[in-house]
Amino acid sequence: MDAQAELIAAVTDRFGPKAVITDARDIEPWASDWRGRVHGRTRAILAPASTEEVVEIVRLAAEHRVPLVPQGGNTGMAAGATPPGDGSALLLSLRRVNRVRSISAASRIAVAEAGVILATLHEAAHAVGMRFPLTLGARGSCTIGGLTSTNAGGTQVLRFGTMRSLVAGVEAVLPDGSIHSGLSGLKKDNRGYSLDQLLIGAEGTLGVVTAVALRLVPAVASRAVAWTGLTSPQKALELLRFLEARTGSVEGFELVPQDSLDLVLRHIPGTRPPLSGTHQWHALVEATTAEPQHDVSGEVERLLGAALEHGIIDDAVIAANEAQADAFWKIRDEISEAERIEGQTLAHDISVPVDAMPRFIVDAAAEVERAFPGVIASGFGHLGDGNIHFHVRAASHAAPGWYDDEGAAITRMVDDLVTAAGGSISAEHGIGQLKRDEFARLAPPGRIHALRAIKHALDPLGIMNPGKLVP
Amino acid sequence: MDAQAELIAAVTDRFGPKAVITDARDIEPWASDWRGRVHGRTRAILAPASTEEVVEIVRLAAEHRVPLVPQGGNTGMAAGATPPGDGSALLLSLRRVNRVRSISAASRIAVAEAGVILATLHEAAHAVGMRFPLTLGARGSCTIGGLTSTNAGGTQVLRFGTMRSLVAGVEAVLPDGSIHSGLSGLKKDNRGYSLDQLLIGAEGTLGVVTAVALRLVPAVASRAVAWTGLTSPQKALELLRFLEARTGSVEGFELVPQDSLDLVLRHIPGTRPPLSGTHQWHALVEATTAEPQHDVSGEVERLLGAALEHGIIDDAVIAANEAQADAFWKIRDEISEAERIEGQTLAHDISVPVDAMPRFIVDAAAEVERAFPGVIASGFGHLGDGNIHFHVRAASHAAPGWYDDEGAAITRMVDDLVTAAGGSISAEHGIGQLKRDEFARLAPPGRIHALRAIKHALDPLGIMNPGKLVP
Repeated sequence: MDAQAELIAAVTDRFGPKAVITDARDIEPWASDWRGRVHGRTRAILAPASTEEVVEIVRLAAEHRVPLVPQGGNTGMAAGATPPGDGSALLLSLRRVNRVRSISAASRIAVAEAGVILATLHEAAHAVGMRFPLTLGARGSCTIGGLTSTNAGGTQVLRFGTMRSLVAGVEAVLPDGSIHSGLSGLKKDNRGYSLDQLLIGAEGTLGVVTAVALRLVPAVASRAVAWTGLTSPQKALELLRFLEARTGSVEGFELVPQDSLDLVLRHIPGTRPPLSGTHQWHALVEATTAEPQHDVSGEVERLLGAALEHGIIDDAVIAANEAQADAFWKIRDEISEAERIEGQTLAHDISVPVDAMPRFIVDAAAEVERAFPGVIASGFGHLGDGNIHFHVRAASHAAPGWYDDEGAAITRMVDDLVTAAGGSISAEHGIGQLKRDEFARLAPPGRIHALRAIKHALDPLGIMNPGKLVP
Repeated sequence: MDAQAELIAAVTDRFGPKAVITDARDIEPWASDWRGRVHGRTRAILAPASTEEVVEIVRLAAEHRVPLVPQGGNTGMAAGATPPGDGSALLLSLRRVNRVRSISAASRIAVAEAGVILATLHEAAHAVGMRFPLTLGARGSCTIGGLTSTNAGGTQVLRFGTMRSLVAGVEAVLPDGSIHSGLSGLKKDNRGYSLDQLLIGAEGTLGVVTAVALRLVPAVASRAVAWTGLTSPQKALELLRFLEARTGSVEGFELVPQDSLDLVLRHIPGTRPPLSGTHQWHALVEATTAEPQHDVSGEVERLLGAALEHGIIDDAVIAANEAQADAFWKIRDEISEAERIEGQTLAHDISVPVDAMPRFIVDAAAEVERAFPGVIASGFGHLGDGNIHFHVRAASHAAPGWYDDEGAAITRMVDDLVTAAGGSISAEHGIGQLKRDEFARLAPPGRIHALRAIKHALDPLGIMNPGKLVP
C-alpha cells in the first residue's frame, strides 16, 4: 500500500467513514477553486470533527509524508485551498470542526471553530445582542478558519479592520502535531514571538487553524445607506475625508465606476440605477450606529447635503428602507458576476497608499487601455482602504485563450504599476497559487528568503499546503 | 586582531568616531539594566546614525560572527537589552537613529525612527494637534524601537491597546543585513507572513527595528481623573464594568491596595492621601475626550455618584485641576520606587483573564504569605487589562540575599499559580534574560520548539541578541 492509502486507511480506522471522503463525485466540487480557474486532483478529503482529530491526522500525515491542503468553504480568490494537480496531497476539510464554543456579550468575544460559516457566526452574535462586523459576499459559505488564514477583508474594513484586527487569539495544529493554544483570553501576553499573528494570513502553510477567538462589537441599532454620483475617484476620496472629519459612523465606502454599474444593470435581473442622471463615478456609503437614539440617517442626509453644496458630489440618494439599502449593496456585490457574464475578465486585488489611489485608478486604467487596445480597465471597491479591485475586460473580439495569453502580460503590467506606486499585488485575497509567480518576481529577495526560512523552520517535512504562498 | 576588534575598527573606519564608544566610563551606564539587577560587559557600543549604517554594521557583525545587543533607552524590565556578562557581544545603540521622519494629522500616522524618545513623539504629535496614546513611567528615556521590540503596554492600554495595536508598520534590518520595509502605509497587504508582527515583541532577537509607523489619535480636549476607595478587587472590576457600560471615555483604570498607598505616603515626599478615610483598595480612574463640548468631568462625577449609590464604591474624589490629577497619578507611578526604598521587593508582571483577576489577587497573595511567613504580597496596576504587578516584599528581618534565595522560590510559586490560572508570566515586560528560565520551565514544549525554529531560521549565525527571549 502506498503512503496515501495507508494514511486514508489509518484515518478511516480511527475516526470512522465520516472522516474520509473518497468518492470522486463528492470530492470533485472541492478539488477546483470556486471560480473554476484551477483544477486540482486528490484521492481523498479527510474530514476530522475536532482539534484532537486534526492533531492525529497531522501526526499521521507527517509520519507518512503525505502533504495536506487545509480547506474551509473553498471560496478563496487565489486557489490557496485547491490541491495540486498531480494528486500528491490530500484535502483536509475543516467543515466538520464547526462548533461555536462560546459567545458572550459581556466579554465581547466569540470562540468559533475553524469550520463555522461566517453567516452562522453573524447569527450567533446577533442572538446575544452583538455583532461580528467583518462581512463579504461569500458569507454564506466561507469559514472562520479560511477567513483567518487569508486575513480576509471585505466591505467593513474601514471601521473595523481586517481579520487581523478582529482576531483575539488562534488555536492551531502545527506541522509537528503540537497544538498552539492562543485562546487564553489574555489581553496582554508577552511571552515571545506571536504565533497567533504568524498564523493569520499564512494560508495554512504553517499549520491548521482549528479555532479562533473573535472580537465582537455592539449590534447595529440603525444604518443609513446612500448612493452618490460624482465626477472622479479624487472626488470620492474627498467625500470620504469630508464625512470622516464630521462623523465616526461611516463603515462602508465603495467606489463604483459607471462602466461597472452599466454591466450590472445589463446582466443582473431586478437591478435599477439608484440615481436618475448619469455620473462617471459613484460612491456607496454606509453609516451605522449602535446607539438607538442616534439618528444616523438624518446625519448622513445633512452631511451629503453639505457635500453637494461644497461641490464634492453631484447627486445623492439615501435608501428609504432596508430593501432599497440591500438593492444598493446588490449592485456593488454583483459587479464580478456581471463581468463574468459579459466575458473574460482579469481581476487584480491591489492596494496603494490611500491618498495615491484616485490618481492610480485613472492613470493605470489609461496606461493599460493604451498598451492593450480594445480592453476596458476599471477599478472599484474599497477606496477608503486604498484597496480596489482593478479589473480588465477583454475586447469583445478576444479569442477564448485571451485570459492566459494577453491576460498574463496585462497582469504583469498592472503588478509593475502597483509595485512602482509602493503598493501590494495582494491587498486582501492572499497569494495562494495564482499570485505566487508574480510575488516571486516582485518581492524583495530578503523577504522571500525570510518567508522560506520560516516555512522550512516550522514545516521541515513540507506537509502543510505545499506550493502555496511561499515562492 | 580578534573579531570584535576588527569589527570595531571597521565601524570606526566607515562611520567615524561618533559611531563607536569604547571608553569604559561611557559604556558603564548602558552595560547594566537600569534597576541594577543584571550586570553585563561589553567592549564597545556601536552607535549608527541611520538605517543604512545599521545595515552595514549588521553585515560586518555577521561577517565577523560578533553578536549584537540592540538597545534603546535601556529602561527594559527583563534585562533584554543588557549584554551578556562574558563580554562576547557588542551593544548596538539605536539612540542616534532618532528622526521623526514624518507626522501628519491627516493620515493619523507618525513615522519615527527607533531612537526617538517616547516623550519626544508625544510632543511631536501634540504639535500637529494629535496624540500618541501609549505612555508609561519611563517616557522621558524609553525609545520607540524598544517599545516596539517589547510590545510595551503602559497605563492607557485599556482603550488603545499595546504597541501591537498602535504599530502600522515596521522597518527593520534582518540578521542577513536585508531591510524589511513595512512602512509602505498600505492599509491592506496580504503578501505572506507578517514580518511586522513577528518583529513586534521579538526583543531584538530577529532583527533590529530601525523605524516604526505609528497610529495617532485625536488630541485630548479634556480629562477627568478620579480616586475611588472600595472594599475589594472584585468591587474594582465591578466599577470598571459599570463605567464601561455607560461611557466609552475610560482609558485608565489602575488598582492600588492600601498597603501600596501607605508605602508611597511614607517614602515619597509631597504625596498625600486622596481620600480622608481608609479603604482596603483603591481605583484610579482616568477618562478623556477628544471633543471640546463633551463634559467628561461632569460625566465621571455623575457615574461615580451612581456607583456610590449602588454600593460599588465607598468614596470618590475627582481631581479639581491638572495639578491634583497629576498628584493622583504620581501615587500610582511611585509605587515601585516606594517599594525600593522600603526594602527588597520581588516584581511579577503577570496577567490572567480579566474576570479571574480579582480572585487571583486575593488568593495568590494569601497563598504566598502563608507559604513564606513574613512576606507581604499585593497586586496593583492595570486591572482592566487583566494585568497586575504582583509584588512580594521581604519581611523586615530578611537577609540581604533574600532576593536571590527565597525570592527565587517565591517567583516559582507565583508563576505556577499564574500558569494554573491560564495566565502569562509576562504580561507586558517581555522575557529578556530574567524570565527565560521560568519561560522554559512553564511553556508548552511545542511553543519552545516553534520559537527556537523561527529564531534559528532567521538568525542562523546567532548574532542577534543571543541568550534573550528564546529558551
